[in-house]
Amino acid sequence: MTEMGFAAQSATGPLEQFAFERRAPRPEDVVIDILFCGVCHTDLHLARNHGGFTTYPIVPGHEIIGRVREVGTAVSRFKAGDLAGVGCMVDSCQHCKPCLQGWEQDCVEGSTYTYNSVDRQDGGVTYGGYSGSVVVRDKFVLSMPDGLDPAGAAPLLCAGITTWSPLHRWNVGEDSKVAVIGLGGLGHMALKLAKALGADVTLFTRSAGKEEDAFRLGADHVVLSGEPEQMKAVAGRFDVIIDTVPYDHDVNPYMPTLALEGVLVLVGYLGPLGTPVNAGGVVRGRRAISGSFIGGVPETQQMLDFCGAHGIVSDVEIIPIQKINEAYERMLKSDVKYRFVIDMASLKSQGA
Amino acid sequence: MTEMGFAAQSATGPLEQFAFERRAPRPEDVVIDILFCGVCHTDLHLARNHGGFTTYPIVPGHEIIGRVREVGTAVSRFKAGDLAGVGCMVDSCQHCKPCLQGWEQDCVEGSTYTYNSVDRQDGGVTYGGYSGSVVVRDKFVLSMPDGLDPAGAAPLLCAGITTWSPLHRWNVGEDSKVAVIGLGGLGHMALKLAKALGADVTLFTRSAGKEEDAFRLGADHVVLSGEPEQMKAVAGRFDVIIDTVPYDHDVNPYMPTLALEGVLVLVGYLGPLGTPVNAGGVVRGRRAISGSFIGGVPETQQMLDFCGAHGIVSDVEIIPIQKINEAYERMLKSDVKYRFVIDMASLKSQGA
Ligand SMILES: [Zn+2]
Ligand SMILES: [Zn+2]
Ligand SMILES: [Zn+2]
Ligand SMILES: [Zn+2]
Repeated sequence: MTEMGFAAQSATGPLEQFAFERRAPRPEDVVIDILFCGVCHTDLHLARNHGGFTTYPIVPGHEIIGRVREVGTAVSRFKAGDLAGVGCMVDSCQHCKPCLQGWEQDCVEGSTYTYNSVDRQDGGVTYGGYSGSVVVRDKFVLSMPDGLDPAGAAPLLCAGITTWSPLHRWNVGEDSKVAVIGLGGLGHMALKLAKALGADVTLFTRSAGKEEDAFRLGADHVVLSGEPEQMKAVAGRFDVIIDTVPYDHDVNPYMPTLALEGVLVLVGYLGPLGTPVNAGGVVRGRRAISGSFIGGVPETQQMLDFCGAHGIVSDVEIIPIQKINEAYERMLKSDVKYRFVIDMASLKSQGA
Repeated sequence: MTEMGFAAQSATGPLEQFAFERRAPRPEDVVIDILFCGVCHTDLHLARNHGGFTTYPIVPGHEIIGRVREVGTAVSRFKAGDLAGVGCMVDSCQHCKPCLQGWEQDCVEGSTYTYNSVDRQDGGVTYGGYSGSVVVRDKFVLSMPDGLDPAGAAPLLCAGITTWSPLHRWNVGEDSKVAVIGLGGLGHMALKLAKALGADVTLFTRSAGKEEDAFRLGADHVVLSGEPEQMKAVAGRFDVIIDTVPYDHDVNPYMPTLALEGVLVLVGYLGPLGTPVNAGGVVRGRRAISGSFIGGVPETQQMLDFCGAHGIVSDVEIIPIQKINEAYERMLKSDVKYRFVIDMASLKSQGA
């Protein structure tokens, strides 16, 4: 079936309307009419080929909320009319040890991403959520809890699970002291989730003026990371630090703020840490530097159910798809509180 | 009381005979006649002021085994004639949270080290185990299990606890796959302890020819870390890697050999990791880089009891104190299997 979306045709060109084929639904497939799609930094990086592995045309988008249009004959978990979500992955081998444990993001054979990836069944390229509909294997479709604003819920599928997964893994709860570095799409979700889990929550930020927002989003304290006195005052304090900084940065100043056996978890950056990591920062106090990459499908469902029970959604600015290029420019200036979400009805208003 | 020992008088001079005062025993003190003292790399580094904080004269030695000569009136755990051990610490504040949890090495007020440290009660400098006797607060004296060779047991007090602590913290047991980087004083203890804990044990080494020793010490496998094919063959394998390398090195090649949620634990090096740590190495697979620094007193007793039950001691080369300077030179060439231990009877043979 022919679908309409927005695609980049090159690393330097804008995203523009693009007609493409969605596969005919297989027995285990769910066809979803997309209502909203969040705009993740990864979308921008891949549209502009920052990683060097983009296949053009590329239709980004992996924070997808929509309504089920139809389901294949083998699908029992969903029916037409259900509100459903799709995150960063749409398939994996389903038989390796990580897959069997629900860590599809660590699939030994490589998971199939929602866009710019090779469909492991038909060899085609996957196209993401900047489009009218999506066809996804049922095991990778999330059930959306009732009562959440669907636009605000869209970013839960990437920003939400990316911050939930490490909070969950490192047992954050009522007795925990958690800090979050950076107040962007990931950071604002980390504040909300950590607070809802009952933790005492601190925001580390480089710039003053974020206090009001931080407190509203769930922070109990705000620490200016450039102020040595403020850093000293939180020495030995945090059980878990969620580091959402999306570029190379120096982690050493944060290490002494960890409690004994505390852990700093990188979730925003995958490259080399150019400032030499001081081994003493982990040796003393048995601290650790860890990381986390999105999360598995069962864990994503768990996060969504938690958000449903606690009324947690992302703070979003809704845009029509026609503003996506402008949104990318604003994201580069951190000019968004805290996630752009595309209202996919706009796709039709242009006449698909 | 006047005691005889061996001290360095400067960063460049040899260790030589040195007479000094041991404090009169306080009510909670144990006086120990030293039988054996292990020779740790830290001894060499501090004798030569590599850290820049050595107070001369310095009497090194923190792997002490001896026999109790007398105890203060408040001491009930020891009596004259007991075999006792003293490790890296001889005191701490005893009231901070880490101290109360048995993590005296993390004492908020700073622990008192066995040598080159300030006695927190009388302000004097502490002198270590390269001497005839030592006077130590009872809480920092370890009870030695029966049946262990006392010379071989001496290195348990530093090399043993340093490798035991991370194995214990990261729950190494029968289902664990453990790797050890480096085969020196720490590395050979890590092999023995991991094997005795029931783990499947691998030695990473840069140089061939260590297989026979490695297998004898407890390794099930040996991997040459410079051979890409061998490294690839152990991808995703290890739950815990104990990294005993005592100098700056590149940890990145080891990260892919960790299983999901696996951890590399630095125990031999406290400085900056000059080769940029790749964040992707911890983000993918939720891996971690952690560290560990000796261990607490209760944990040290637990390790000694475990070693007693399993007949574990260090492989040692026994030397007279008069050979200590030569031993340091040989240590710099890794020419020791695997720990020098000073037979302190040699001190008297020279006529103290
Ligand atoms: Zn994303
Ligand atoms: Zn798989
Ligand atoms: Zn030592
Ligand atoms: Zn203390």
